[in-house]
Amino acid sequence: MQATIITIGDEILIGQIVDTNSVFIARQLNAAGVTVGERTSIGDNHAQIVAAVERALQQSQVVVLTGGLGPTKDDITKRTLAKLFQSEMRYDETVGAHVERMLAARGIAFNALNRGQAMVPERCTVLFNAHGTAPGMWFERDGRVVVSLPGVPFEMEHLMLDEVMPRLKARFALRQIVHRTLITAGLAESMLAERIEEWEAALPPYLKLAYLPNPGAVRLRLSAYEVDGRQVAEEIDRRFAALQRLIPDYVVGFETATMQELVHRMLTERGLTLALAESCTGGTIAARFTAMPGASAYLRCGVVAYSNEAKCDLLGVDPAAIARHGAVSEQVACQMAEGARRVAGADYAVATTGIAGPSGGSEEKPVGTVWIAVATPRGTVAVCRQCGTDRGQIVDRASAQAVSLLRDALREEEKAKISNE
Amino acid sequence: MQATIITIGDEILIGQIVDTNSVFIARQLNAAGVTVGERTSIGDNHAQIVAAVERALQQSQVVVLTGGLGPTKDDITKRTLAKLFQSEMRYDETVGAHVERMLAARGIAFNALNRGQAMVPERCTVLFNAHGTAPGMWFERDGRVVVSLPGVPFEMEHLMLDEVMPRLKARFALRQIVHRTLITAGLAESMLAERIEEWEAALPPYLKLAYLPNPGAVRLRLSAYEVDGRQVAEEIDRRFAALQRLIPDYVVGFETATMQELVHRMLTERGLTLALAESCTGGTIAARFTAMPGASAYLRCGVVAYSNEAKCDLLGVDPAAIARHGAVSEQVACQMAEGARRVAGADYAVATTGIAGPSGGSEEKPVGTVWIAVATPRGTVAVCRQCGTDRGQIVDRASAQAVSLLRDALREEEKAKISNE
Repeated sequence: MQATIITIGDEILIGQIVDTNSVFIARQLNAAGVTVGERTSIGDNHAQIVAAVERALQQSQVVVLTGGLGPTKDDITKRTLAKLFQSEMRYDETVGAHVERMLAARGIAFNALNRGQAMVPERCTVLFNAHGTAPGMWFERDGRVVVSLPGVPFEMEHLMLDEVMPRLKARFALRQIVHRTLITAGLAESMLAERIEEWEAALPPYLKLAYLPNPGAVRLRLSAYEVDGRQVAEEIDRRFAALQRLIPDYVVGFETATMQELVHRMLTERGLTLALAESCTGGTIAARFTAMPGASAYLRCGVVAYSNEAKCDLLGVDPAAIARHGAVSEQVACQMAEGARRVAGADYAVATTGIAGPSGGSEEKPVGTVWIAVATPRGTVAVCRQCGTDRGQIVDRASAQAVSLLRDALREEEKAKISNE
Repeated sequence: MQATIITIGDEILIGQIVDTNSVFIARQLNAAGVTVGERTSIGDNHAQIVAAVERALQQSQVVVLTGGLGPTKDDITKRTLAKLFQSEMRYDETVGAHVERMLAARGIAFNALNRGQAMVPERCTVLFNAHGTAPGMWFERDGRVVVSLPGVPFEMEHLMLDEVMPRLKARFALRQIVHRTLITAGLAESMLAERIEEWEAALPPYLKLAYLPNPGAVRLRLSAYEVDGRQVAEEIDRRFAALQRLIPDYVVGFETATMQELVHRMLTERGLTLALAESCTGGTIAARFTAMPGASAYLRCGVVAYSNEAKCDLLGVDPAAIARHGAVSEQVACQMAEGARRVAGADYAVATTGIAGPSGGSEEKPVGTVWIAVATPRGTVAVCRQCGTDRGQIVDRASAQAVSLLRDALREEEKAKISNE
């Protein structure tokens, strides 16, 4: 079954916001076996909304719209849909009472604008929005469905999960869609394609392969549409298992696996502990690890040592080393990592010190120069990396490189252990 | 002048990636005075690409496509466009030599797949991609332009800036588009609309007002299309100045201003210093401050004190306080903030300690409970906040609340100073 997603709002067309709503909606529809054929974004414009919905209804059984349901004058989706479905407006008592209650809890008076939130087209089923003031709406025409949801992500997500998906499953007989993704790192896209050419050629026609390059990784996704989900999932598992045997050193994991998830698993499984000493990455590495549930089991502490004083006072870096080599140097990176490891009593510690820009660069050490060190029970290693020219990019790449260096150190320990046994 | 953006790739339709490319392209086009009328995402499918481009050419003078230009079999945009523009393929020596050089630098052999990257349609102008192996393409038909760019964001961005925008400006006589956004915080959308009703009603018809609610903020955007940019920008400045006089306590700033930018400015201008002690926010507050150039001037240090040991050893929290009140408590939050302030010798310090979940909650302190403390030269304040149920959401909201509390403390100091003078 085919669906179209339409997101409404000038803010999307001028690039003021990133459209994450359609990402969430696409995932939910896919997981239930509904194929998204097209995603369109249009402005808060009557004629455009009508044209987009009419066109979508020609190619899809389900059309999901978000946005344009706010209380203010610039939001016109509700009035437009009422006209399109030739429907009068009525006041919905349940929605009205809910809006009044929600606002009262926040100390906000119920005014005419809020009262307007409870006006709904007669010919729609109201989808109750427990988390906001704009209700969702479900229209039907000739066996096809048009759903309109508010654009606030949190409210839209709850309405999709609690109202839209159960109704779609009840209304249509859905088949399944299967996507699985294997993450590789260390091989360029063209080299990877060459290496796995025979494996790719032998795939059955109902399995569609996609290469998705990322900085430092290439993801391989196998997809099958409208199939027996369980059987196909098993087939994909077999194909990916064969692939792993072909390129064992280059597989990072599956689905959205990241290098820090791999390290998270390695540390957790082996009961090792970690400390972080971040200068130029400013807490980003810590934030990435602590974003994963269970990080508290291994993360002893992180120190954001932006100033030289913090490097010396909190991490025991020798001021003379900073004076002699500069804060961005192999010596200081190593002392930061060793200091963090010692202070925290951790097995491993990672340190970064670099020039994130836009100022602070020199000819010898231009913006983007980053020293990364990993202190381990077997000694300390440090590398220097050029991480780009843009502040955000530098922090991002330096963080990724640091996690990668830690992974290498953890792998070495594993190998050393195995050869010792 | 009107443009359509088309992003190509199954990964967008299944919700595997967030489409940030069209955000960047829309911003660039808008800045040059080109109105984006529609944005569409379609799959790697010949018929869909042809239909989307043909439809876009009916409503727009400029069509920008991204994606589907990789070396592997799933990428079909180039072949499809060659057919659409009835063009044979030719080998481009310049592109070929560039691809070979790029790969050699990374130690990658030049294989048949890479050679294919240098095959281009005869009837297009090649847009040289200095940062990748897939060239951009510029087609023209009946005075309208179709541009095809690779989907890798970094490569697409450089091609937009270095090749596409200069050519568009040379090719068309463009008028200007002006967007300005004022950020408010502390007033719900409907209350804000009521407060500024007269101001809104008095806006000239060529200025379009949009309300954009965010968690904790409502943005007000004024837009004008195809106008004399300078004159309109001045008019918007006057309108916003009048608005600021209407709601002086609720304006945070302009454009993408955030609460941490406001705090960043307050700290910088007053020459104050800051220390951070993060437990549940795990480095996120530090990362948000250090993302801004100049943070090194005031950020003395940050400590990610995830473990109780780190709280005691690095921040001097009393173990007895943890034993008596728990790590998530007013007492521990205050001691963390005071400890960070003392250790770093900073003027202000912010601390967070909470339950980010998914485990660790109890009836008394459910997941999402966060204590936030701010230590100041005049004493320490602490608040308890319920920050949601999802780990990412909890970290996000707790970080925002912490910065907001710091802002309040900085404001109070300012007020106290003024009343003392």
